[in-house]
Amino acid sequence: MNKRLTFKLVGKVLMLEAAMMAVPLIVSLLMGGGDAPAILLAMAVTMAAGGLLALLRPRNDNLRAREGFATVALSWILVSFFGGLPFFFHGSIPSLVDCFFETVSGFTTTGSTILTDVEALPRGLLFWRSFTHWFGGMGVLVLTLALIPKMGARSIYLMRAESPGPSVDKLVPRVGKNARILYRLYFGLSAIMLAALLCTGVNLYDALIHMFGAAGTGGFSNYNLSVGALNNPAAEIVIGVFMALFGVNFSVYYFLLKRNWRASLGNSELRVYAAILLGSTLIIAFNILPQAGDSATSLRQRFFQVSTIMTTTGYATTDFNLWPQLSRTILVMLMLIGSCAGSTGGGLKVVRLQILCKTMVREIRRTIHPKSVNTIRIDGHTVDERVISSTLAFFFAYVFTLLFATLIVSIDGFSFETNFTAVLATLSNIGPGLDMVGPMGNFSQFSDLSKIVLSLCMLVGRLEVFPILMLAAPSAWRKY
Amino acid sequence: MNKRLTFKLVGKVLMLEAAMMAVPLIVSLLMGGGDAPAILLAMAVTMAAGGLLALLRPRNDNLRAREGFATVALSWILVSFFGGLPFFFHGSIPSLVDCFFETVSGFTTTGSTILTDVEALPRGLLFWRSFTHWFGGMGVLVLTLALIPKMGARSIYLMRAESPGPSVDKLVPRVGKNARILYRLYFGLSAIMLAALLCTGVNLYDALIHMFGAAGTGGFSNYNLSVGALNNPAAEIVIGVFMALFGVNFSVYYFLLKRNWRASLGNSELRVYAAILLGSTLIIAFNILPQAGDSATSLRQRFFQVSTIMTTTGYATTDFNLWPQLSRTILVMLMLIGSCAGSTGGGLKVVRLQILCKTMVREIRRTIHPKSVNTIRIDGHTVDERVISSTLAFFFAYVFTLLFATLIVSIDGFSFETNFTAVLATLSNIGPGLDMVGPMGNFSQFSDLSKIVLSLCMLVGRLEVFPILMLAAPSAWRKY
Repeated sequence: MNKRLTFKLVGKVLMLEAAMMAVPLIVSLLMGGGDAPAILLAMAVTMAAGGLLALLRPRNDNLRAREGFATVALSWILVSFFGGLPFFFHGSIPSLVDCFFETVSGFTTTGSTILTDVEALPRGLLFWRSFTHWFGGMGVLVLTLALIPKMGARSIYLMRAESPGPSVDKLVPRVGKNARILYRLYFGLSAIMLAALLCTGVNLYDALIHMFGAAGTGGFSNYNLSVGALNNPAAEIVIGVFMALFGVNFSVYYFLLKRNWRASLGNSELRVYAAILLGSTLIIAFNILPQAGDSATSLRQRFFQVSTIMTTTGYATTDFNLWPQLSRTILVMLMLIGSCAGSTGGGLKVVRLQILCKTMVREIRRTIHPKSVNTIRIDGHTVDERVISSTLAFFFAYVFTLLFATLIVSIDGFSFETNFTAVLATLSNIGPGLDMVGPMGNFSQFSDLSKIVLSLCMLVGRLEVFPILMLAAPSAWRKY
Repeated sequence: MNKRLTFKLVGKVLMLEAAMMAVPLIVSLLMGGGDAPAILLAMAVTMAAGGLLALLRPRNDNLRAREGFATVALSWILVSFFGGLPFFFHGSIPSLVDCFFETVSGFTTTGSTILTDVEALPRGLLFWRSFTHWFGGMGVLVLTLALIPKMGARSIYLMRAESPGPSVDKLVPRVGKNARILYRLYFGLSAIMLAALLCTGVNLYDALIHMFGAAGTGGFSNYNLSVGALNNPAAEIVIGVFMALFGVNFSVYYFLLKRNWRASLGNSELRVYAAILLGSTLIIAFNILPQAGDSATSLRQRFFQVSTIMTTTGYATTDFNLWPQLSRTILVMLMLIGSCAGSTGGGLKVVRLQILCKTMVREIRRTIHPKSVNTIRIDGHTVDERVISSTLAFFFAYVFTLLFATLIVSIDGFSFETNFTAVLATLSNIGPGLDMVGPMGNFSQFSDLSKIVLSLCMLVGRLEVFPILMLAAPSAWRKY
């Protein structure tokens, strides 16, 4: 591996992170709270570390797949470590493991928290905590890519490693331009959401925090009661709808703007996603009818909850821990499925589910007619056998990680439901799970070992398993 | 599909079942209990139904894959239905759904029960209930195959559909001879176990019942407290060891008798199986040490429990529901893995886990070196890509069934742990799960819908997913 090139790129990402810390610093200076020195110190440390790494002189600029994946994996780990320093220097989160957990949770847009009282944090730190969602949503590296476009065609490896979904649609031939298109869509949609939230009467600070959380499908709120604390049905609807929108593949919006209806609204992943979203909402609303009252309110709340889980955001307006078992189990299934590929959300991704189901049906067909040849088609295109076998291997790796992490977390002795959904909620980048880690609970009671395992699950989930697992393979580090 | 041939074959299987009912009838006549008339009536009905179907005259004897799979799937469903009639006619299980559940559980060697008081059943019915384990263990169809060898080479489809594991090793070229070799090994091992149990002082009736349960890896006992009721440490060791032996691929014994050491003891699946079995025993024994006392007794009990779960038998000597969470979670993992392919046990099978893990590692390698070509080898043989993709598809279908069934069962409103492990325990043909369906609990409280879903899970698990799913595909029934 071209280690120098890898670390040089990681250094640039850290410098970008340090620059981004200026935003919470300004917020802190404007709104008070005494956290400005901590943020400034963290900024200086991050800039110094990044600057030193960026000084490295690689022998060549040969960026291959392995450098791409390693850069992405290392960047995310280091960005999360340095991003946790403001909390540590300020003393509001005294343990470094907790700082790392909280920041990984931010950047990976998970939204799981170890804080028992979110509201105790000063305004600048709260802002930074949510800002990481927005920053991490579209990919830290993709942003770097958009800013440093001279890396050339090979930087597709960086984008591929960081982008969610089985394959990256190239909207336009040049990678840097692709990244800029995606960022423009992201900014545009974020701005519309912010405006809509302000219209419902939410103040600017709260609106920004909840826009960051919804756009990145993260789920950090500045209130202990999450979105429920806003006590604003209109804002709930805005957040619910925009979460669902940010869970859609961004190429849909690109083609929509190009007025290519077939490639946008005709997208089969979009249709399946919408069908699952609405179907689950109706089943849960029906299931919960006896214990809920007014059915219009109930439907609004159910939609919000289904949207928040399926898009892997994790905001809460009600404590779904108290729902009947069928509804809770539906939420667990939604946690596993997740949102669309190419969105800011996590989970398995709807298109993977489509490929997996079609492969299962093909296997049944092959049982009946052993000699038949069947290709799998999505949106009229034949899916390459290589992509199918990757998707199947991905599914196994996902479930393997889920079970293995559940096993380690179970050492702490909490209930099976707590352990299983805690791992699922971090692996799929959702945030809250069920039982102890339900929407009104948090992850503070886990041991340090479990917190580190859960942090790794968030990274494994966000980077889609293989880049993180790759770091553990000795052959990745060998010289060639 | 050649429907007449399919139903004719199913008819023959039913006639064989009716003949088998003579065994519990004799037991009933010898030991009393008043269940002989019920067994006789069921026998007559089954013989009549089978005889009628066997009268069908197919236009040709063309047995293709689809007829093979359909025959196997239909046979298992009908055999379970008719096999439940003795309980129904006697009135000891008044609901037909419960009768079906209990008999499916028997034939599929699952061992889940809806009976709250097993000991209330008369001796003949209890014997029949356990006898189904032994009958189902090696495959109802494989037995038919061994008895009707003239079906020719194409009957490999019947064997393939019923035998556990990704591919059938042909020990010898002729299928009928293969089946007879397997049955001879099965009878031999069963006889040795029976003799060993009698030596420990267990009476003949109890010894037969527990031999049936262990050989078929089923798990029905004639006592409410399962094997614990025997109160006989030596018998516990015998049952524990033989369960583990029946969880091994039978081809290992075949090659052992042929003194081919490399193909028997060198078998990698055997080694992984033994490593998981012993590793789990040690971890659980260590985890449980504070609450257990004497470590030799503890180790014996842990080995028994690990063996019973991993081989998917389901006998109990202690209530593992009371174990610490780590040990319980290990049991859940063992439930998923299951025993070796080509054994009487259920679950995913160890060799599939090997293939899946190797595929995951290959995917990581491909991430690092996108252009490399990697084949997957087991025991020095390259695994065919077609088998790999089937195995991956199988894994998805397995997890899909697990989650979908959990969703339906959750309508009943029991805990997540109860639902998830109830489905896992039936799908992997184990028997008991955790929480409400733990070793001291039973399945009686589920609704009829859940009982039917769980019965289907047992069939799906025993026949390895695709034959049962195939029955739902319209194209399987089309004429050609």
